[in-house]
Amino acid sequence: MKFEIKQNILLEHLNYVIRGISTKNLRPILNCIKFELTNDGLYLMSTDSEISIKTFIDKKEILNIDTTGEIVVSGRYIYDIIRKLPDEIINLEEVIDSKLYITTKNSSFTLNCSNVNEFPDLELEFNQNPITLNEKQFKTIINQTSFATSVSETRPVLTGINFKIKENQLTCTATDSYRLAVKNITLENKTVENWDIVIPTKNLNELIKLMNTDEENIEMYIFTNKVVFKFDQIIFMTRLISGTYPDTSKLIPDKYELTIKVKYDDLYSAIDRASLLTSESDKNTIKFETTETTAVISSNIPEIGNVEEKIAVEKDNNSEIKIAFNSKFMMDAVKSLESDEIELMFNGEIKPIILKSTQTDDLIQLILPIRTY
Amino acid sequence: MKFEIKQNILLEHLNYVIRGISTKNLRPILNCIKFELTNDGLYLMSTDSEISIKTFIDKKEILNIDTTGEIVVSGRYIYDIIRKLPDEIINLEEVIDSKLYITTKNSSFTLNCSNVNEFPDLELEFNQNPITLNEKQFKTIINQTSFATSVSETRPVLTGINFKIKENQLTCTATDSYRLAVKNITLENKTVENWDIVIPTKNLNELIKLMNTDEENIEMYIFTNKVVFKFDQIIFMTRLISGTYPDTSKLIPDKYELTIKVKYDDLYSAIDRASLLTSESDKNTIKFETTETTAVISSNIPEIGNVEEKIAVEKDNNSEIKIAFNSKFMMDAVKSLESDEIELMFNGEIKPIILKSTQTDDLIQLILPIRTY
Repeated sequence: MKFEIKQNILLEHLNYVIRGISTKNLRPILNCIKFELTNDGLYLMSTDSEISIKTFIDKKEILNIDTTGEIVVSGRYIYDIIRKLPDEIINLEEVIDSKLYITTKNSSFTLNCSNVNEFPDLELEFNQNPITLNEKQFKTIINQTSFATSVSETRPVLTGINFKIKENQLTCTATDSYRLAVKNITLENKTVENWDIVIPTKNLNELIKLMNTDEENIEMYIFTNKVVFKFDQIIFMTRLISGTYPDTSKLIPDKYELTIKVKYDDLYSAIDRASLLTSESDKNTIKFETTETTAVISSNIPEIGNVEEKIAVEKDNNSEIKIAFNSKFMMDAVKSLESDEIELMFNGEIKPIILKSTQTDDLIQLILPIRTY
Repeated sequence: MKFEIKQNILLEHLNYVIRGISTKNLRPILNCIKFELTNDGLYLMSTDSEISIKTFIDKKEILNIDTTGEIVVSGRYIYDIIRKLPDEIINLEEVIDSKLYITTKNSSFTLNCSNVNEFPDLELEFNQNPITLNEKQFKTIINQTSFATSVSETRPVLTGINFKIKENQLTCTATDSYRLAVKNITLENKTVENWDIVIPTKNLNELIKLMNTDEENIEMYIFTNKVVFKFDQIIFMTRLISGTYPDTSKLIPDKYELTIKVKYDDLYSAIDRASLLTSESDKNTIKFETTETTAVISSNIPEIGNVEEKIAVEKDNNSEIKIAFNSKFMMDAVKSLESDEIELMFNGEIKPIILKSTQTDDLIQLILPIRTY
């Protein structure tokens, strides 16, 4: 393997694959990046067995391909070296005893390589029927649901986001069993097959960090035990979580005793301040109580003090609500709606609270109340 | 105590005193901020027994002083509450049972207060003969020397910066016994008394964070066991470290076997890259070797690989140097010089390396070599 490339081009692509290397030292080969130079261009690959990333630099972006070939080299070292080199032409060459020789005008590095045959096969397959989404849309889905995922490994299936695809309907669901986020998207094309899969949330969060543009499309190829995403010049693979995702469709009521409208800023900042006087050990509990056209949000830590916040509300009938909930969960839910005006829906103090934007029904947030009254 | 003030004004001053509260929970009163409202204005105070901070808000900046008085309240809570309130007028009032009542149009907080008598006396004295420095100059002194301070508590005196004042000469010295930074400043006025004190480096780093402007002067009032700084509307006190600071004046030679000139960017980036292939366990050792008009900087980690960097140098005679040193120490020293061109001075491979800017002699950096040749 021998070629010349501009520093900024190689660095851009190393920035992608560096996210796929393992940070643990259990299998040193998983700390490596594989370079595969062909006459078409350069492929870079990494995997930590949870996710795999492959990126491609077209031959047009390479200054000179002298000899094709493959090497496997420490990801952290090659990344730091290329990052710290000046924006000049870099020569990369495999020399005897499987070493990588990296040179610019004034710098020369020699890195010991690993055995190419030990690098795992990434199994980046494609099939006939990808699901196509826009990058911006995909990022929004993840940002609006991922926070509701469980962080506890007790029920592994809840550490992922459930993607349910039926004809041209995609439903993404996340829940930690105290709250629930449901996002509905209408796809441009009907899918041939229906799917009901669970993708690890932490892998989706890594995936969206790789998305630089908002305009490009992302193609999603689903298999029984993995899903492969293709966008820009990147291929990203993640394993799926096995197990059946709970049926949450019956948790959202179709009618409510009381619906109130509030301004986003009023609600968010009042809860944010009230949460200063809540404690983790007390589930960050705050109280919410309506009286005619206002709601009072209150909380206290007996040793420290108490707080009362007033906000204007618009109710759809004369009934009142008195309810308590986790302030952090409420802030996450409110923030995700990205709307100037928000609807909160109630069916009494022991029933779930539902939130949505007044503009659209495509995102529903649910929070279980805390019994205090 | 009862008064009204704009949120942004109170927050600006809380931003100063919050840095003085203790983050440990050993003496809860040290987690508090003291408010002292007089007819002249409001004093805010904090102390963690290492440092004390006092700031003053003039009555002209307070909207309405209703009743003067004193309260002591949890620093973390009052700071977060004021920070999260909107930029409106805030009412603060001491109510019965020593509670602080904080209200705006829509928010009301009640915070339990601590006993005013338990708050320590800050002992912020002044004397007749302050030493006056410019804020920018003071920040530069600390930034150019503090990194050379010892982080180990084995010799407490080395965890501080030595300020030596004689007539109109101030010499600031920091050393961890492997490297040394010496900064000389000519003061505008002669001091009446000569001083030789050691100020804890971590306290000086806190102090310079409080300096917002570069133009203002800072006054330094020195006592046998403390030093009080006065600038803007802030008073900052730190204890001194007791013990005799080592005499480092004889460590800087007055002649050199070889002096070389190098460009800052060349030297810094070459060492930065070479340090990628060094390890903490090997003292980050890199080698430096001159040949005619170039210097080769090299290092290696046997399991990983090696690096060689070439830079152009200008020597004052035909002799050559072959020396090894800690790359991190060299980068700290080079960076501190803030100069396009740097002089490195050598007296052989086992004698200290001296660095300075080609422009000025007021800052000298010394690094001990590592014996490897």
